[in-house]
Amino acid sequence: MIKVGINGYGTIGRRVAQAIMLQKDMTVTGIVKTKPDYVARFASHNFKLFSPDDKSRKQLEEGGLRVSGTLENLIDDSDIIVDATPEGIGAKNLPAYKKAGIKATFQGGEEPSVAEASFNAYANFEESTGKNYVRVVSCNTTGLARTLSSIKSAYGIKHVSATLIRRATDPNDSKKGPINAVEPGLKFPSHHAPDLRTVLGDVDIDTVAVKVPTTLMHVHVIQVDLQKETSIDHVLENFLRYQRILLISGKDGMSSTAQIMDFARERSRNRSDLYEVAVWRESVNLKGMKLNYIQAVHQESDVVPENVDAIRAMFETMDREKSLSATDMTLNIGNKVF
Amino acid sequence: MIKVGINGYGTIGRRVAQAIMLQKDMTVTGIVKTKPDYVARFASHNFKLFSPDDKSRKQLEEGGLRVSGTLENLIDDSDIIVDATPEGIGAKNLPAYKKAGIKATFQGGEEPSVAEASFNAYANFEESTGKNYVRVVSCNTTGLARTLSSIKSAYGIKHVSATLIRRATDPNDSKKGPINAVEPGLKFPSHHAPDLRTVLGDVDIDTVAVKVPTTLMHVHVIQVDLQKETSIDHVLENFLRYQRILLISGKDGMSSTAQIMDFARERSRNRSDLYEVAVWRESVNLKGMKLNYIQAVHQESDVVPENVDAIRAMFETMDREKSLSATDMTLNIGNKVF
Repeated sequence: MIKVGINGYGTIGRRVAQAIMLQKDMTVTGIVKTKPDYVARFASHNFKLFSPDDKSRKQLEEGGLRVSGTLENLIDDSDIIVDATPEGIGAKNLPAYKKAGIKATFQGGEEPSVAEASFNAYANFEESTGKNYVRVVSCNTTGLARTLSSIKSAYGIKHVSATLIRRATDPNDSKKGPINAVEPGLKFPSHHAPDLRTVLGDVDIDTVAVKVPTTLMHVHVIQVDLQKETSIDHVLENFLRYQRILLISGKDGMSSTAQIMDFARERSRNRSDLYEVAVWRESVNLKGMKLNYIQAVHQESDVVPENVDAIRAMFETMDREKSLSATDMTLNIGNKVF
Repeated sequence: MIKVGINGYGTIGRRVAQAIMLQKDMTVTGIVKTKPDYVARFASHNFKLFSPDDKSRKQLEEGGLRVSGTLENLIDDSDIIVDATPEGIGAKNLPAYKKAGIKATFQGGEEPSVAEASFNAYANFEESTGKNYVRVVSCNTTGLARTLSSIKSAYGIKHVSATLIRRATDPNDSKKGPINAVEPGLKFPSHHAPDLRTVLGDVDIDTVAVKVPTTLMHVHVIQVDLQKETSIDHVLENFLRYQRILLISGKDGMSSTAQIMDFARERSRNRSDLYEVAVWRESVNLKGMKLNYIQAVHQESDVVPENVDAIRAMFETMDREKSLSATDMTLNIGNKVF
């Protein structure tokens, strides 16, 4: 039984905590929260609460919540920490983990240098084998890595060009967005291209990211120059071999992220999440060796199964196939659309 | 066992169908759908599908779905039809229900004249006793009727002035909105004022409705001139006597509809819905006999329990207290926030 402490319980942390709770080989030792908000209150039904410092402890206790100790205490109780703190804080926490001699995973907001390996279950599970510090790549990179690694294995990749049409902020944020604007990132390529190479290896890839006024999902418009000829049907069949890729269709009424998220609510999953990357069948097109497709990424949840698998790779308790199968089974992940 | 057919399976119909499925004294005989979209596909896992006409039947069957018959067949199989068809279609369906001698409920999009009574569980449950045709008032009117009927019973109402800040469209709609504008309704009062009187009785009420660029919830800013003096604490305690009124607080991090909907996702309900009307504690203020408060309404789901109770009133199988208690129990409705 791997004892997992969750440091940071925001959009990702709370979802990873719940996913770990569902694994037979893992247990959640506690979660670290700073404020007694509704998220902390619900968390206190299922998990022990820890605080990063005395100020937070006071805040939580004044809010009527029971605090079981500090981050140091949580580290003592755990075999690994899932660091899901805001961007940049993970790097600051690393020395404490090293000092305590405890393993840790980080999220995609951190620089790759924070960890010994970056992780995507399909692209490079084995590279995290036995590692102490692993970074699960971001939601966008995870979505790209899933479909591109499946394409790379089957046909080889000469070049990728991807336009990422990004949600401006998460649904529970009323401060940052949605902005009333279309805001292109002006650095070429966007940080996603080098990030993808941390898991996909030496692939020639260019990415451009553009923020739009929505909170629901990211949409990626992808063009791949293949190394091997194929057919649209073969590409679709190849995608279907991967449980975390979902083939959806405009014919079923899913013409935008609005309907995809509504579809996710019909599936009765926790928080109405969609762990799979959704590829529109109709968007898969081939012109010679140029493959085009469009996919939608649920930024709040697609990295959740990846976080679970990263832990198993680090502890070498299961190989890739067994870990993915256990994770997919417990989270009810699969490419059966209906 | 009351046999309920659902005619129309959009935002409201599918939620009412699921709620009825959970009642011990009711069963769903089938649902009427026109298109083989993702909603119909999920529905086919739980319910028999019927079609309104041959064209729809063909569409559904071409989409690979099994059709059990027409609306007429569904009427034959049922004791009552919940008509949740789009605005105005309910009135067109009424003659068919009358001809078949079957009871029916309608939604708030229809004119009050479509039915013998308009319904809100707190405001006027008994007025639908034994009726054949009942209209459950709209999401906005339901939200207003809940808090205002509780205030009316306790203190009496001289006058109500309410500003309804409305979501532009539902989350699964990518055609109508959110609009990039603030669009006031220019008819004074808005249709909500007379609609409220269909359930609250002869109350002097003015309403103004303004559309804003969001899909999540409606927010009502309400001012009530009371007939009897009271205190803020008493008003809060009075709200707490009603299970379908939830007192939330900015202190818990719920400062906007974004966080309220995220809070609803933490509660693990079907489709992450929020059946209760949410009143901000801090917004409850008194100046002499003038009471102010602000509430948020989940337009997709607040009428769901009302639809269930309306059926029991019509069949006279339970009194108000018993029906509300059964509905609230099965839908896990309550004013315990955490």
